[in-house]
Amino acid sequence: MDGRMMDFPLTLIPILKRAGTLFPKREIVTRLPDKSLHRYNYNKFYSRAAKLASALKSAGLERGQRVATLMWNSYVHLEVYFGVPCAGGVLHTLNFRLHENDIAYIVNHAKDRFLIVDDTLLPVLERISPNVNFERIFVVSLSDLEVPSKFENYEDFLESGDKNFSFPNINENDACGICYTSGTTGKPKGVVYSHRAMVLHTFCSGLVDTIGLQHRDVLMPVVPMFHVNAWGLPYSGIMMGSKLVLPGPFMDAKNLLELCESEQITLAAGVPTIWMEILQALESEPQKWTLSKNLRTIIGGSAVPESMIRGFDRHDITIIHAWGMTEMTPIGTVSRLKVEMDCLDINRKYELRAKQGIPVPFVEVRAVNDKGVIKWDGKTVGELQVRGPWVAADYFDSDQTNDKWTEDGWFCTGDVVVIDKEGYVKIADRTKDLIKSGGEWISSVDLENALMGHESILEAAVIAVPHPKWTERPLAIVVLTKGATQTKEVLNNYLSQRFAKWWLPDAYEFTDKIPRTSTGKFFKTKLRDIYSHKYKNY
Amino acid sequence: MDGRMMDFPLTLIPILKRAGTLFPKREIVTRLPDKSLHRYNYNKFYSRAAKLASALKSAGLERGQRVATLMWNSYVHLEVYFGVPCAGGVLHTLNFRLHENDIAYIVNHAKDRFLIVDDTLLPVLERISPNVNFERIFVVSLSDLEVPSKFENYEDFLESGDKNFSFPNINENDACGICYTSGTTGKPKGVVYSHRAMVLHTFCSGLVDTIGLQHRDVLMPVVPMFHVNAWGLPYSGIMMGSKLVLPGPFMDAKNLLELCESEQITLAAGVPTIWMEILQALESEPQKWTLSKNLRTIIGGSAVPESMIRGFDRHDITIIHAWGMTEMTPIGTVSRLKVEMDCLDINRKYELRAKQGIPVPFVEVRAVNDKGVIKWDGKTVGELQVRGPWVAADYFDSDQTNDKWTEDGWFCTGDVVVIDKEGYVKIADRTKDLIKSGGEWISSVDLENALMGHESILEAAVIAVPHPKWTERPLAIVVLTKGATQTKEVLNNYLSQRFAKWWLPDAYEFTDKIPRTSTGKFFKTKLRDIYSHKYKNY
Repeated sequence: MDGRMMDFPLTLIPILKRAGTLFPKREIVTRLPDKSLHRYNYNKFYSRAAKLASALKSAGLERGQRVATLMWNSYVHLEVYFGVPCAGGVLHTLNFRLHENDIAYIVNHAKDRFLIVDDTLLPVLERISPNVNFERIFVVSLSDLEVPSKFENYEDFLESGDKNFSFPNINENDACGICYTSGTTGKPKGVVYSHRAMVLHTFCSGLVDTIGLQHRDVLMPVVPMFHVNAWGLPYSGIMMGSKLVLPGPFMDAKNLLELCESEQITLAAGVPTIWMEILQALESEPQKWTLSKNLRTIIGGSAVPESMIRGFDRHDITIIHAWGMTEMTPIGTVSRLKVEMDCLDINRKYELRAKQGIPVPFVEVRAVNDKGVIKWDGKTVGELQVRGPWVAADYFDSDQTNDKWTEDGWFCTGDVVVIDKEGYVKIADRTKDLIKSGGEWISSVDLENALMGHESILEAAVIAVPHPKWTERPLAIVVLTKGATQTKEVLNNYLSQRFAKWWLPDAYEFTDKIPRTSTGKFFKTKLRDIYSHKYKNY
Repeated sequence: MDGRMMDFPLTLIPILKRAGTLFPKREIVTRLPDKSLHRYNYNKFYSRAAKLASALKSAGLERGQRVATLMWNSYVHLEVYFGVPCAGGVLHTLNFRLHENDIAYIVNHAKDRFLIVDDTLLPVLERISPNVNFERIFVVSLSDLEVPSKFENYEDFLESGDKNFSFPNINENDACGICYTSGTTGKPKGVVYSHRAMVLHTFCSGLVDTIGLQHRDVLMPVVPMFHVNAWGLPYSGIMMGSKLVLPGPFMDAKNLLELCESEQITLAAGVPTIWMEILQALESEPQKWTLSKNLRTIIGGSAVPESMIRGFDRHDITIIHAWGMTEMTPIGTVSRLKVEMDCLDINRKYELRAKQGIPVPFVEVRAVNDKGVIKWDGKTVGELQVRGPWVAADYFDSDQTNDKWTEDGWFCTGDVVVIDKEGYVKIADRTKDLIKSGGEWISSVDLENALMGHESILEAAVIAVPHPKWTERPLAIVVLTKGATQTKEVLNNYLSQRFAKWWLPDAYEFTDKIPRTSTGKFFKTKLRDIYSHKYKNY
């Protein structure tokens, strides 16, 4: 017996139309390159997104063809987020922090037809242009520079569109976007999101127990819009009718805190490294900013150290610790306490909040080691595998997929985890970052998070260096707080309160800065390159 | 270009499995026929639902076959809500308040194969049994009566099942449930819900801006589980891991308030008539119950009078006014204020909250009159039409569908509405309850809600009575507060502050009780039967 419900496809079009119809007065604020604030409302946003869809259709964009962006977080990028997929096209956000060869590879691999680019990012385009071939390039004049005559002006292109555009019929399984993973091994791999997955992910983000995004929120995605669709937040925010604040190119602590204060942000989102800077700024000038009483921040992309959750609590800012992947649109788990945990000791609560959390509805998790699926005992280690309606089934046009999906249909995350009996996932490490010492595993993430809880330490990364007897041993690379000095003995003594003796780093390197990947994570392969030479005969 | 996401069907199975895995300790509380409270946890609930699915499969239940229930709101009904659809069957909840001929008609029309029945409802079964033919009947001994030997014991049947049952693969468009509308004209009509629609509806209910159901909630569905799946709340509650409190057969104000206090309910749901009684109880003994600080109630099924919203605010209980239909799974609109409305005058805010509200994400609305689709001007009247992924596409095996769906695929609700420029829908009346006077329309709902705001009036229903000159004129049937007396002159004088003179009722009838339909709404066809004779020569 079939259900007898309407065949109403889950596409981004109803989200866009609802926003334009029900929330015309809601504001979207963008920090421009000259630091001024651009403001307009959903009514304008809707008209411009519809015009863009119309102009793209008139320009001959066919179903499934890719439109690339080289853009910061701005109102124009938001228009493109909707205009492209609602015309039946596929949004391809390029990570302009990648090496130019990688960007060119990605553009060619995805067969991008058009490009929309911020004028401030034209230098990136110049560097890749010898190796790519866009049919048309539209430049967004955010900084009022004149658009070079060889390109077209985005505003002119937009004006050619019709705001009363009648959106095409789109199948919910059609692609709406593509993102490439900035993997550290092999070529970048494309994840192709469907309208259906994006809509379901958007509903999931609005659940109280996941992100709880709502109409009354003032949402600031600090996570770049070229990074997993800014965790889907632009779609979620527009569906709920939230006010959006887009920080443009100014992703530093001072500018972000200014926006938090001036726009009274209630929900922000980004990777831990940015929030570390913000925490430092708050600690050094605690009275400077008057923030919203309800400010909460979703932090993901790397594990959040417990010390950071405690630190933000001191400033009445609630961290929502979440975990996901490019291959998961990205939400996978969120760490919130269950009701029964309210009575736990405060230290135990922080320990739980520092875990990655429990799977959100319709994401299923398991962890597997060489003996099979592991028990949820909080001890046994295995590789995390996931499945769900917004989890990728393969990579676009790639032969690197075989080892990432199991025969029974689960995606292998590459994260090594334990799962406790309450279902809280805790990432011990990336498979490739685990330190293999004397036949046992040492978690670099656990050591890092413990070190970052020490008062003299700002940041810490731990990597494996080769060892003739133990195969590998941990090396800690540490950034100290201003003026502090420190020794291996003191730090290992501190660590020995929590870890077995054989886990303690054999050596410490003190440095000014830990190199970052293009998405703000610790760049561990680079650290291995830097230090492996020094420690190779060690 | 297709999206490359997993083909992960939206069925109720992942909801059930997640609840059992992640929230084993969460409680489900049921008021038994002897008024004692039955308590068990999600772990037990999961095992029993899985056993039921397994037992049904072993009993030969095939994909799409119907299992009927004659049951109050209880933990067993909750097991059946999941056990039947997760075995691939279709849950058919029977409204035992209907006339026995209607129940028998519905059972036969749906071709129900098995029945699960509360022992306290065996008298209903006795009345319909001459006209129906269930293959097997399972009796739930909630009141510890012995199960008559001609029936099977639900507990014995359950014990034959395997709690490690491996759930079948279910297509998301398969039926999970069927409900018959208790229409006042024509034969009852079956609405067949798909797993997909139910899952999407469940996600929608968890959005902060709709119902905002969450893990921390203590949820009490007062709306019967035979009425549109108790508005989908059992599914939503289990997905979020909420504590559920099921009031069994005790749906009166005193018993409900006792449960609100003893279990510290945070979210309750039901039709306005039940909440009117509760408000009266609170007003007469304001200190008696210590309720949760966060108690909110979803009220739908009929329009909520503004006076009632104000009344509950006095007791710090927030009414969430929602509107839906059996044909909509049921959520359609929710009335919450937009941020821009925070600065409005308090009277204007109440006026908005008394409207049915704005459509939830993925429900689209329009209203149509004989000139076409109406403007959203707050004045023009039209019949509300809706569409969306949880809106019915037709009725089961019925020839009464032609006039309910438009050629372009919208469902005609039968509600006459205005929509204001902010998108708030306000139901003026049911099409059949509108009063046609001198070629103009009078809204019975508006008159009722105004009358119910008068201090001397408990309840008011307004119906049309025939009139030789004006075609129809309004008659008000009124229940006064204890000891009050009242006259037509005083009440019409009160109404004339808001309504044109020709809207005022021609006559008043004072009575002790207004008859109710089986779902607790004013029974207007019955009122017309009662009073049309008296007023036929009028």
